[in-house]
Amino acid sequence: MRIVDIRQRTFPLNVAIANAAISFDDMTASAVAVVTDVVRNGKAVVGYGFDSVGRYGHGGLLAERFAPRVLAADPASLLDDSGRNLDPDKVWAAAMQNEKPAGHGERSGAIGLLDTAVWDAVAKIEDRPLWRVLHQRYGRGPAPTTVPVYGSGGHYRPDGDIRTLADEVKAMLGQGYARVKIKAGGAPLVEDRRRIEAVLKVLPSPDRLALDLNGALAPAVAETFLDTVAPYGLGWVEEPAPPLDFATSARLAERYSHPIATGENLFAADEVKNLLRYGGLRPDRDLLQFDIALAYGIPEYRRIVAAVEAAGWTRARLYPHAGHALALHVVGGLGLGCAEAGADQSKMFGGFPAGVTIADGRASLPDTPGIGFERKANLFAMAAGLVE
Amino acid sequence: MRIVDIRQRTFPLNVAIANAAISFDDMTASAVAVVTDVVRNGKAVVGYGFDSVGRYGHGGLLAERFAPRVLAADPASLLDDSGRNLDPDKVWAAAMQNEKPAGHGERSGAIGLLDTAVWDAVAKIEDRPLWRVLHQRYGRGPAPTTVPVYGSGGHYRPDGDIRTLADEVKAMLGQGYARVKIKAGGAPLVEDRRRIEAVLKVLPSPDRLALDLNGALAPAVAETFLDTVAPYGLGWVEEPAPPLDFATSARLAERYSHPIATGENLFAADEVKNLLRYGGLRPDRDLLQFDIALAYGIPEYRRIVAAVEAAGWTRARLYPHAGHALALHVVGGLGLGCAEAGADQSKMFGGFPAGVTIADGRASLPDTPGIGFERKANLFAMAAGLVE
Repeated sequence: MRIVDIRQRTFPLNVAIANAAISFDDMTASAVAVVTDVVRNGKAVVGYGFDSVGRYGHGGLLAERFAPRVLAADPASLLDDSGRNLDPDKVWAAAMQNEKPAGHGERSGAIGLLDTAVWDAVAKIEDRPLWRVLHQRYGRGPAPTTVPVYGSGGHYRPDGDIRTLADEVKAMLGQGYARVKIKAGGAPLVEDRRRIEAVLKVLPSPDRLALDLNGALAPAVAETFLDTVAPYGLGWVEEPAPPLDFATSARLAERYSHPIATGENLFAADEVKNLLRYGGLRPDRDLLQFDIALAYGIPEYRRIVAAVEAAGWTRARLYPHAGHALALHVVGGLGLGCAEAGADQSKMFGGFPAGVTIADGRASLPDTPGIGFERKANLFAMAAGLVE
Repeated sequence: MRIVDIRQRTFPLNVAIANAAISFDDMTASAVAVVTDVVRNGKAVVGYGFDSVGRYGHGGLLAERFAPRVLAADPASLLDDSGRNLDPDKVWAAAMQNEKPAGHGERSGAIGLLDTAVWDAVAKIEDRPLWRVLHQRYGRGPAPTTVPVYGSGGHYRPDGDIRTLADEVKAMLGQGYARVKIKAGGAPLVEDRRRIEAVLKVLPSPDRLALDLNGALAPAVAETFLDTVAPYGLGWVEEPAPPLDFATSARLAERYSHPIATGENLFAADEVKNLLRYGGLRPDRDLLQFDIALAYGIPEYRRIVAAVEAAGWTRARLYPHAGHALALHVVGGLGLGCAEAGADQSKMFGGFPAGVTIADGRASLPDTPGIGFERKANLFAMAAGLVE
């Protein structure tokens, strides 16, 4: 078997939302199709991948560097021992040849995008959902049937309406989510308190609420923010420190006794090791949110999991960033703590493939082969046309 | 005045060399032209920028994200107080709007590429060489006339001939260089020793030789390497640790008493601060080699210089990576320790613009307006056609 072609497309998101760090008005994302010569149900197997959202599309780098390397490799050098399926680690190594160490941005997203599509193809060729493939290879204990999930939303909107925010959270609870996350730190503290208290009114307990600061606050402002919200006893506060400011992270963790979550803006095992070594985080309560698709994909995520475990943490503390189907499969397959979910199914990057149900704060795992992007119609439309 | 257009082109280097980390066979780089409506000598001023070499071209990202943002900005918002020239900090901020923190790779090179061309235009509009513009704004003490420089080469070659290596170093001395750097760590230690000893024979003293390990050695191998070369008393050993492995860096600095140089694979002030905080480096002897063009350009380099000084280092310990004209100007203008020089003038990325002379280990500073890429003919040819 072989990879016949790798095709990509970058598309605009067309959403008008913001968090404390950036506006999403001009945000883009990419879709990729890895076309194979393996036939299933009378058609060539195609693996699809989509970006995690927030760092723009990665299709350009994929087209410039990584796809040509993979297409130029001897096809036999990319196969597993059976010779009948791709070996994702070998495809990864072919894409990354002659890349210098460090510089973990953009490139890590382009490789993660490609790797997503490779795993989608691998699972389709195995005729099983990706989470089952991952569980068999890298999982622990019995196969799960559902995984914990939390609803993510509560962005700042141009109208700034607090009732809209409370309604959004109520809708998430109605959908079956038990925990929710909203954005904070992007408005004056007095407004953020109003937002928080409006949401707490509709939740059964304050530990069901998480706040995402997006690493945008100056350290002194973050201290005040944490002091202010400490009495609530929230589920977690996310990115109170700038992503690479490990000294501030350690100081805030010293000050704030409730859970802190971070890591979505670290993109390689190198960077994760430094966070674990210098960031002052606490394995008994804090949460690690490295984004699988933005951080070089599953081969690197396995190195990240190994680094996390070597530092004395359990997989239950891993809550990968980005509410997409890839993360859901990896949470299920590797036995991680919780998946994020963009709860608004009407959004391109909201909700999961059709057939995934949410109940009691848990998501069912897909049973169709591959990742299932085809069953998330408004997202999959962005890949339409890549393969006739 | 305004920026009329931003044009870029990515081109192959076509060189067959290698260091301990990667082969350069398929390496690319980008050229950019920032076209203004300012007329000097009857022609529109165009600022040019070229990549530092080693991390592939950045033109794609520039075209996708950064150039459109700058071209969409209100032209008046990009000007300095006089209204007659660009303010590079404002252009930088326009290019970086709605970019999340961290993820410092690729993007940092695309921004640095753009920033190079902006400063070339700014200096041309001021009708002065860039180093004079920088010295007036950010320099200290009297304006220099020459700057210290070292010759960089000694790559591994397919033929592996040690006599060729010694001849290359002799040629550098003949050109006026007093210190040279060669690659090491990419061959068995016994062969590297032969390379080192062949070069030491042609140098007046061992402190004139530096070795570049390119961060490619496993920590235990690096320890053995440093123990082996310690008796020589070399000028410096470069990147003995992987770029982001600050714990290994600290351990090696504890072990090896002679100078260590590092930093060319850190791409933002965030990352520099972590190196200074955790890397165990010694302000009285070690060298910091952050690459100006790959690390978001001069605005970020100024933040890096500030972080370095705040940590108790002097500017004399800064030896920026990449032997190109931009770095030469910045070394002269900001009063840094030493510039790198790709000594082989016949290479696209070797040597400096015509008119720069090397003598007694120092380079003269250009006296033509701007950076002077136009006077480095084999490189400037890659920008030919960007502006009719």
